[in-house]
Amino acid sequence: MTHAPINFADKLSRFNDHWAPKIIAQMNDYHFKLVKLQGDFVWHAHDDTDEVFVVLDGALTIHLRDGEVTLRAGEMFIVPRGVEHKPFAKDECHMMLVEPAGTLNTGGTRTERTAQDGVWI
Amino acid sequence: MTHAPINFADKLSRFNDHWAPKIIAQMNDYHFKLVKLQGDFVWHAHDDTDEVFVVLDGALTIHLRDGEVTLRAGEMFIVPRGVEHKPFAKDECHMMLVEPAGTLNTGGTRTERTAQDGVWI
Repeated sequence: MTHAPINFADKLSRFNDHWAPKIIAQMNDYHFKLVKLQGDFVWHAHDDTDEVFVVLDGALTIHLRDGEVTLRAGEMFIVPRGVEHKPFAKDECHMMLVEPAGTLNTGGTRTERTAQDGVWI
Repeated sequence: MTHAPINFADKLSRFNDHWAPKIIAQMNDYHFKLVKLQGDFVWHAHDDTDEVFVVLDGALTIHLRDGEVTLRAGEMFIVPRGVEHKPFAKDECHMMLVEPAGTLNTGGTRTERTAQDGVWI
């Protein structure tokens, strides 16, 4: 029996909306999600969990209250729990997130940008 | 203040040994690790956790008791907890693992291939 790998490019080809993470895998009680971003997001924090950002294509700047970090393909960053951050991508950026199942994209800040959680592709 | 991203290529340039995962980041009680593989590993299972394999460069075949899966760069696979598996890489493969802090590379099977846990780069 040949099992199928999870291919990021294939999964990314299945959606085009921005700021709406899609689940591609589950490890224990954590989800691996892919998301496409462009433009400015809202300031928010996740009080109960660190949040992992891995850039697959393009560039992402994460603004923090004390500065910023810019990630390109092949780079990752972990925003510690409770730390306010605001992602920004000048051009479209493709990213993988790792976070506990049920984590909302806007953390403790409910806005029009709050995406439906739990969508698998 | 400019924060530094974690760059996979930079981290991979810092070691050359095989089958000895190095920690590059911590998310809650999970570690992100990089490892270089070549050749055959031992059959083992992790009874308490799923294990995430993400291939960054090269190709990895994971033999399972009921078949196999081959991963290339840009692909991932999750071996469920308790499932016996044996990684194999014909040529050198660079990989990222995600697993709970303290997880041994050979799971419940102690062999000469069991690597020291807790090594950061």
